[in-house]
Amino acid sequence: MPLIVQKYGGSSVADAEKIRNVARRIGRARDQGNQVVAVVSAMGDTTDHLIELANQVSPDPDLREMDTLLSTGELVSCTLVAMALRALGYRAISLSGVQAGIRTTNTYGRALIERVEPQRIQQEVARDTIVVVAGFQGFTEEMDVTTLGRGGSDTTAVALAAALGAERCEIYTDVEGIYTADPRIVPSARKLKEIGFQEMLELASYGAKMHPRSIELGAVYNIPIYVASAFSDAPGTLIHGEVEAMETRKKVTGIAHDLDVAKITVRGVPDRPGVSAALFEPLAEQGISVDTIVQNSSVERIADVSFTVSRGDLKRALEIIGPALQEIKGGRVSSESNLGKVSIVGSGMQNAPGYAARMFRSLARAGVNIEMITTSEIRITCIVREERVREAVEALHRDFELEKEG
Amino acid sequence: MPLIVQKYGGSSVADAEKIRNVARRIGRARDQGNQVVAVVSAMGDTTDHLIELANQVSPDPDLREMDTLLSTGELVSCTLVAMALRALGYRAISLSGVQAGIRTTNTYGRALIERVEPQRIQQEVARDTIVVVAGFQGFTEEMDVTTLGRGGSDTTAVALAAALGAERCEIYTDVEGIYTADPRIVPSARKLKEIGFQEMLELASYGAKMHPRSIELGAVYNIPIYVASAFSDAPGTLIHGEVEAMETRKKVTGIAHDLDVAKITVRGVPDRPGVSAALFEPLAEQGISVDTIVQNSSVERIADVSFTVSRGDLKRALEIIGPALQEIKGGRVSSESNLGKVSIVGSGMQNAPGYAARMFRSLARAGVNIEMITTSEIRITCIVREERVREAVEALHRDFELEKEG
Repeated sequence: MPLIVQKYGGSSVADAEKIRNVARRIGRARDQGNQVVAVVSAMGDTTDHLIELANQVSPDPDLREMDTLLSTGELVSCTLVAMALRALGYRAISLSGVQAGIRTTNTYGRALIERVEPQRIQQEVARDTIVVVAGFQGFTEEMDVTTLGRGGSDTTAVALAAALGAERCEIYTDVEGIYTADPRIVPSARKLKEIGFQEMLELASYGAKMHPRSIELGAVYNIPIYVASAFSDAPGTLIHGEVEAMETRKKVTGIAHDLDVAKITVRGVPDRPGVSAALFEPLAEQGISVDTIVQNSSVERIADVSFTVSRGDLKRALEIIGPALQEIKGGRVSSESNLGKVSIVGSGMQNAPGYAARMFRSLARAGVNIEMITTSEIRITCIVREERVREAVEALHRDFELEKEG
Repeated sequence: MPLIVQKYGGSSVADAEKIRNVARRIGRARDQGNQVVAVVSAMGDTTDHLIELANQVSPDPDLREMDTLLSTGELVSCTLVAMALRALGYRAISLSGVQAGIRTTNTYGRALIERVEPQRIQQEVARDTIVVVAGFQGFTEEMDVTTLGRGGSDTTAVALAAALGAERCEIYTDVEGIYTADPRIVPSARKLKEIGFQEMLELASYGAKMHPRSIELGAVYNIPIYVASAFSDAPGTLIHGEVEAMETRKKVTGIAHDLDVAKITVRGVPDRPGVSAALFEPLAEQGISVDTIVQNSSVERIADVSFTVSRGDLKRALEIIGPALQEIKGGRVSSESNLGKVSIVGSGMQNAPGYAARMFRSLARAGVNIEMITTSEIRITCIVREERVREAVEALHRDFELEKEG
């Protein structure tokens, strides 16, 4: 019997009625002849409520304690879903991250899955039992509970699918799939039937709602990921490795955007080996994710470096950059928040020239000034003023004719 | 450094302010030169809220799922207390029942502690860390979470005290200690400075607020248990093995009462070996706790058997008794709810005659009719109408002069 892993997000299990709905959907997949392992997030705003409680008892809650605290949210939802399944007459059991064998690093709050020891799940599945796993959590060698940080439950689901040799991983959420652009900005945005892992990775990294972590894992283990609505039966989007008709189809697959961008510029940095490392290593050590980096070296061996971080990290990044600059002797720092990012993504772009030019022309026609540019094989990203992001997305979606089937 | 185990009940950790208060109290014990292991219950009405959620998704929630669900309540409170301790500058760590090594039977909802594997706690204590343990929970051989049922967190605390060789176990709660009678009924009731394990066991079993389970464990491992208020510094009651001046002190230590009593009477039971077993075994198998049992055999080898159960168990007990009676061929069942129980308890009673007579006379003077009587070495219990329990307690407290120091 084929095994599928399903994941249901927090809004899908926000109350008892929604939990019963999720149980019916899981049961339907079972009725259709699948073994099912379901991964669930915490109910609605449970996590926010727990964080608030922690902040009430401590100005700076310990990360290890925080992880155990937050992990209770998924324990609650997975036991309730298992109960609801049993009430419908299915054999079902809930498993915590520990019981599901999700072994992680001990980097609390943003732990990485090291390996899955799926024996207990396999045992239950062999007994024809639906297994409901608490998402977002794992455990260390010391048997301490960890949480996986952003995109955690999706990552749990894809990791389990890989470890169990599942046919595919289904992510049920509050959107109906992956669109050519955010439908809230571009009403004519079109839902994609399928998309390749690499394209999805670029879309996800550059602003689409899904976190790139789970996509990466899916790509590495070649687990097809189906993204669809938890509330309707509308067909969703299949993210997988083999997208047909790659040569002939439309070259731009979608537009990603991100409204949470801050830029730090360091002028007058000595242009010698090791300087970039001295600048970026301390940021990495503090867990600050640096995104776009642009460096221009001038003739006098003095360079200007600009890079972007999320707005929430700007203050801390500036505090870290100060001492780092003293060490490398040089550089004046300026920063700018209120920026945004707009990207065009498409695996076909790598074999076809001229996409960058078309993108810049489209933005120019819309009167959007470009602050920074970076590219990958299958993506071109422009940093623009935050308040112009919306127009930029609309213009690009229109000019690349994404509302039409490729 | 001496090690003490402290336990804080649900009302002591009901909100963030109360949790900070508990942290201050734990910290104070540390400052006074003790190693401290604290056991906490779930915050206020968390457990009720979780049960309500379960009932919303299932008419008959699975016991295993229920146990994992309910265990999250104590996980939340123990992590918050650990955070609050760290905010005060103490080294502190929370441990779940699994991490604390609380191994139990797999009788979900009312699991019994089989043994404690305290290595992790000892490791943390050796590092001078205050350990905050989630009460009320343990785990089975299959690594499934269990809850300990009534009196669970107290039992966790005493079991840990025994396993760790603690000096004593301190139970902090919403009463200031053990009284000669319920102060809500008898305003002149006196708080006891100390009480022996056996007396306390009788008081607890016959209606005092503490559950006898933890007292039994304390008696077996000879762990002194100190019961006091979590909200004040008023001296509490020490329950221990060596109560001084046993011969000369007042012979009745306290009055216990219980308003939740139902009686089942089976008339015309054949009086032959094995009949009682046939009657009571099926009740035990279904987890129905039978309390007082009274049997009168008559000359024709036909007996009448009466016994009491808690009112909540009456309906199920009657359903079980029916088939059991068919098997032993005989007996007509009648039942009565709305009964109560009043007991006098005192270890001195065993060496001094006349206490039963004094008790019956006191009740008679108060116009309270006695329905059933049972006794132990150090206790005399009368079953009376529920609505007369209050007067009975008042009369006994007055006639045995318990308001005066013994």
